[in-house]
Amino acid sequence: MTLEVGVLGYRFMGKAHANALARLPMFFPDAPDIERSVLVGRDEAALSDAADQLGFEEISTDWREVVDEVDAFYNLGPNHVHPEPSIAALEAGTAVFCEKPLAPTLEGAESMAEAARDADVPAGCAFNYRFVPAIQYANELIEAGELGEIRHVRGRYLQDWLVDPDAPWSWRNDEEMAGSGALGDLGAHTVDLLQFLVGDITRLSGHLRTFVDERPVEGSDETRPVTVDDAYSAQAEFEGGVMGTLEATRYATGHKNDHTIEIEGSAGSLRFSLERLNELEVCLEGNRGYETVLVTDEDDPYLEHWWPPGHVLGWEHTFVHENYEFLSAVEAGGEYEPSFEDGLSAQRVLAAIQDSDERGEWVDLE
Amino acid sequence: MTLEVGVLGYRFMGKAHANALARLPMFFPDAPDIERSVLVGRDEAALSDAADQLGFEEISTDWREVVDEVDAFYNLGPNHVHPEPSIAALEAGTAVFCEKPLAPTLEGAESMAEAARDADVPAGCAFNYRFVPAIQYANELIEAGELGEIRHVRGRYLQDWLVDPDAPWSWRNDEEMAGSGALGDLGAHTVDLLQFLVGDITRLSGHLRTFVDERPVEGSDETRPVTVDDAYSAQAEFEGGVMGTLEATRYATGHKNDHTIEIEGSAGSLRFSLERLNELEVCLEGNRGYETVLVTDEDDPYLEHWWPPGHVLGWEHTFVHENYEFLSAVEAGGEYEPSFEDGLSAQRVLAAIQDSDERGEWVDLE
Amino acid sequence: MTLEVGVLGYRFMGKAHANALARLPMFFPDAPDIERSVLVGRDEAALSDAADQLGFEEISTDWREVVDEVDAFYNLGPNHVHPEPSIAALEAGTAVFCEKPLAPTLEGAESMAEAARDADVPAGCAFNYRFVPAIQYANELIEAGELGEIRHVRGRYLQDWLVDPDAPWSWRNDEEMAGSGALGDLGAHTVDLLQFLVGDITRLSGHLRTFVDERPVEGSDETRPVTVDDAYSAQAEFEGGVMGTLEATRYATGHKNDHTIEIEGSAGSLRFSLERLNELEVCLEGNRGYETVLVTDEDDPYLEHWWPPGHVLGWEHTFVHENYEFLSAVEAGGEYEPSFEDGLSAQRVLAAIQDSDERGEWVDLE
Amino acid sequence: MTLEVGVLGYRFMGKAHANALARLPMFFPDAPDIERSVLVGRDEAALSDAADQLGFEEISTDWREVVDEVDAFYNLGPNHVHPEPSIAALEAGTAVFCEKPLAPTLEGAESMAEAARDADVPAGCAFNYRFVPAIQYANELIEAGELGEIRHVRGRYLQDWLVDPDAPWSWRNDEEMAGSGALGDLGAHTVDLLQFLVGDITRLSGHLRTFVDERPVEGSDETRPVTVDDAYSAQAEFEGGVMGTLEATRYATGHKNDHTIEIEGSAGSLRFSLERLNELEVCLEGNRGYETVLVTDEDDPYLEHWWPPGHVLGWEHTFVHENYEFLSAVEAGGEYEPSFEDGLSAQRVLAAIQDSDERGEWVDLE
Repeated sequence: MTLEVGVLGYRFMGKAHANALARLPMFFPDAPDIERSVLVGRDEAALSDAADQLGFEEISTDWREVVDEVDAFYNLGPNHVHPEPSIAALEAGTAVFCEKPLAPTLEGAESMAEAARDADVPAGCAFNYRFVPAIQYANELIEAGELGEIRHVRGRYLQDWLVDPDAPWSWRNDEEMAGSGALGDLGAHTVDLLQFLVGDITRLSGHLRTFVDERPVEGSDETRPVTVDDAYSAQAEFEGGVMGTLEATRYATGHKNDHTIEIEGSAGSLRFSLERLNELEVCLEGNRGYETVLVTDEDDPYLEHWWPPGHVLGWEHTFVHENYEFLSAVEAGGEYEPSFEDGLSAQRVLAAIQDSDERGEWVDLE
Repeated sequence: MTLEVGVLGYRFMGKAHANALARLPMFFPDAPDIERSVLVGRDEAALSDAADQLGFEEISTDWREVVDEVDAFYNLGPNHVHPEPSIAALEAGTAVFCEKPLAPTLEGAESMAEAARDADVPAGCAFNYRFVPAIQYANELIEAGELGEIRHVRGRYLQDWLVDPDAPWSWRNDEEMAGSGALGDLGAHTVDLLQFLVGDITRLSGHLRTFVDERPVEGSDETRPVTVDDAYSAQAEFEGGVMGTLEATRYATGHKNDHTIEIEGSAGSLRFSLERLNELEVCLEGNRGYETVLVTDEDDPYLEHWWPPGHVLGWEHTFVHENYEFLSAVEAGGEYEPSFEDGLSAQRVLAAIQDSDERGEWVDLE
Repeated sequence: MTLEVGVLGYRFMGKAHANALARLPMFFPDAPDIERSVLVGRDEAALSDAADQLGFEEISTDWREVVDEVDAFYNLGPNHVHPEPSIAALEAGTAVFCEKPLAPTLEGAESMAEAARDADVPAGCAFNYRFVPAIQYANELIEAGELGEIRHVRGRYLQDWLVDPDAPWSWRNDEEMAGSGALGDLGAHTVDLLQFLVGDITRLSGHLRTFVDERPVEGSDETRPVTVDDAYSAQAEFEGGVMGTLEATRYATGHKNDHTIEIEGSAGSLRFSLERLNELEVCLEGNRGYETVLVTDEDDPYLEHWWPPGHVLGWEHTFVHENYEFLSAVEAGGEYEPSFEDGLSAQRVLAAIQDSDERGEWVDLE
Repeated sequence: MTLEVGVLGYRFMGKAHANALARLPMFFPDAPDIERSVLVGRDEAALSDAADQLGFEEISTDWREVVDEVDAFYNLGPNHVHPEPSIAALEAGTAVFCEKPLAPTLEGAESMAEAARDADVPAGCAFNYRFVPAIQYANELIEAGELGEIRHVRGRYLQDWLVDPDAPWSWRNDEEMAGSGALGDLGAHTVDLLQFLVGDITRLSGHLRTFVDERPVEGSDETRPVTVDDAYSAQAEFEGGVMGTLEATRYATGHKNDHTIEIEGSAGSLRFSLERLNELEVCLEGNRGYETVLVTDEDDPYLEHWWPPGHVLGWEHTFVHENYEFLSAVEAGGEYEPSFEDGLSAQRVLAAIQDSDERGEWVDLE
């Protein structure tokens, strides 16, 4: 059996997933057979070029025609395009893989999660950073109790692409299309990773900031308003009493894609940075300080599929891993995590941060 | 003229300041002449031994007899001993150098600052980390505008000496004596450094946590309650719209004395860690990433007094620098910063964090 | 026109190059069209499985039948298999891409270079580390004179896979098959990189060492002798008076694939480590220390083909880049560097190191 | 009993040792009582100022009058002044502490060691880097067998103060006065440290280089020839078959005082850099990578004398430690290491490197 995959979106995320699909046969021979069937978009000419380059057999400008024709529907469009096609696909019994954040609004995410609950197929939210081998390894250490009782967790996601006030406006600056700014784009990753590793957030206090109110539209004299946050921070309590701080910004001069996770427990600690994603720093029983582990050994997560120890992987490999897991679940008719439920859980946290910012006080998540 | 110095406290801080006093003549020949005159404490035998070792001429078990007999009174006792002797000394026209936090309570700090305002002598708060050469260098860069408009500031102070729930109780765990826990002990340093570098905090949301409720008393079967915080976090707004996050804990496995400062501006960024205090990481105009500057060149702050480039300084040198500045101000009858006013400003922030934690909402600092 | 590629070798290097060939269309659309035509090996069953997985259309157990049937012949076998098929292919007018070191002996390398000189097609030596973006960027800085007059160069290649004296014997431990040990396997990379960046070595003093004399044969009770070096070191003079030290070992506990290059000039310095291959450390005019540059910006070498800034590449991307360059040269009928001539130049250095080690004295390279 | 100390030399090393002497009572109360008795030099006015600042009671412009008047004679002058006064002191039964390298020539060092053998008092060579706590800790790990069989050792000492060809001439550029350049000044430290940690060097191949042949004399129009090496490198075999590489230079742009030691054994590895002298990187049994140990715990070497964990020491503390050990040995009439014998052993290696460089071949050390 060959799984037919339809993909909405052909830019950054489209390329990242198409590449992952293309690489599975050589590196994950036990993955299901896949056909890159249909690429979906609006601009027919651009779409056609993209389909050629990304190896899709057909194109479509109407997702409605695609969602029930394929075995798996990938929703990689801007956030505001997430709910409707995803729900339609699920209602048609088609497995769905949707980029994060799940939706621009909490309501959107709730509808999507509800559709997923009613469907009999996997509905995955593409939090790819769970699939960094070093993160999987971190999770193994935590689940084995190597950190003891966790006390502190910190997540920072620092980028610098909006430092320049004249950097052009994009859909990522628009509340309608993106839902939120750094919060949804970067914070969603942090929230999911921390909840994956440590447990659910139960209470929080959040803060949002927009530094530059309007930005020039590329190729025109106009400016458009920035209606989302440029940065957020949050203090949080997690299940089991863990104390957490979270932060993200698009204004961190000198940081390109610096997603940092730090976890401290009674018996051990961990540190991770996405810019050195092959490494995990661990301070476990018997250690006096942090040890830099190059997570590229044969028995490290996913590594037997790739290269010998010390031959490092890149960012894109996380997509191969998540596609492998998602498509295997589709083929087997099994569960996939992170699911829409996980996406909704993250979305609740994002919404609580916005809510807390407006109210100026702590907010409970039930 | 020789300045006579009386010092209350002969343990950790007593040794750190006595060492600084002893080293001034060889390295700062233009510092005033100093006599380590009187060491003040309660336990006569221990005091006498300490005076021998630390080079004091006399001892006294009553600070009342000392505060008007010396040119400078150093108050290095536990926090609850800060206000009364400091105020008495100032009222006697004696310059005062007091350890941080200024007082266990905001009221105490206010009385002290008031006494300082009425006095004609320097009243310094011993925030020694301002006197790390790398921090002075950071301040020079900021004042020269090299960072542009500052957007983000982060301060974390991570220690691990209470990770073990059986680590013994000390006065630092007691609200009466310490006022607060990690907040006052570690957070006071962070607050002062960030306000020194970036400007005053105007609003904040704070959070406190006690992980272990009681601790064993050393050499007995008893336990005593921990009545202060083990950790705090805060979100803050600074003058000029800078967004800040602060945090400290005594439960960060693997971190001994890790006071980290990060500042990001529209034109440049800085990073500093106390465990590598000879280094400042800078990302300025023309840089593509952070540059690790070893701040040990002859024209770096205070360095001409010490060794050739690359011959690194230690933690204790910060005390030499602050004593040099404080005693020079005493001799000259001039101003000293950080003053009691700066100590009070930090204390207001600490109090606002406690207040915010109790109320669960943001708090303004006028 | 589609280039037909025949590949001898289907293990580690076979997979690395097959993957590179497979990825070109999506990321380098201007690369020539390629067909993975024939996979060559001895064990028909294993070969057939490999061809399936690596996407080859046919298999052959006789390279003689392949070398004149394809447009490009990839020689990825053990070192002793490099000369004969490569020369045959070149004589048949087929472009050749050969893994490093070019040959197990200097004589072999000389014959291969001679065949390349006589041929009208590109003959490339697969020194893939030239194609790390950070190395290309380093080369640009050097060529622009940013380092001034180069004084020092250092190359170390540290691995640890033979630390255990019971690690099994392989062809890499055999002089007949490999020519040399760490010297040819790791040192060849270092020599080529340093000669690429700094210029040719003119004199050297070399040293070889074998720590463990025999090793167990996997799946048997026998041992076989280790007839190659486990480690080498060298002192060298380069063109222009640069002073260099080189070293490699398979016994460096804690180092998986740590190829480090350091270059110091009168105006600037560089550092690189393969385990953090997305980074280049630079200390240039205006810098006070080393700056960690994440070489992932759009205008960094090859990066516009991949992902946005900060989305790091892996080890395997170096193969995509070198295949892109090599196959473009094949299509265009142009030159490719590193060529067999470069491979021979590196081989001369390797031979001089062995020669110097035997004679215990410095050796000139004309 | 109070030990009277006479010190020849009042510049960099004079200050470093005077400071150490001054700090002993407060931090090492069990050290012998010491009097800084006489400071020896040639320029009476400068000497008198220095004696004031460094706390000496008397001055003398003739070391002959001092060597038999004191309990310990410190020889901190330029290298060519080491032999004669040191030998005279030893012949007078006065303990001697001499800066490194022991002498400008092997012959000088041999006479000094002979005088030390004949004397009944400690004769120490001031290789202060043995007394970095992290180095002492490294030595403990090695002696406890934690590294297994040592295979590789590397020592690099990189400075940059002569990068500029117009940096002024000093006695350190003169063969008569210094004996050698980077070799004796920096290499002596490396040789001693490696021999201390790993064992004696038995064979070596060395290489010297002078990049700039003459330098301007400060405050004049003249230049003077540079008659020593600017840089050296060496390959070495140590007792027990350890393979070593050594290097030093004064032309390493971006490195101020970067003395790096790396040791790899069958069971573990170590790394150290003087610019981060509070840290030791260790990869021991159970580690997957290097662990950064902050060597500042109470039970780390010498640390109980100083500050709590994480409160880092500086370069100068190594002098306090060595003075404590040396003077304790003087008082007890015991042995001190590193002794003149160790200084001679290092000197033999330096001479062998020069000899090997001249002959272009390996040289044995008996």
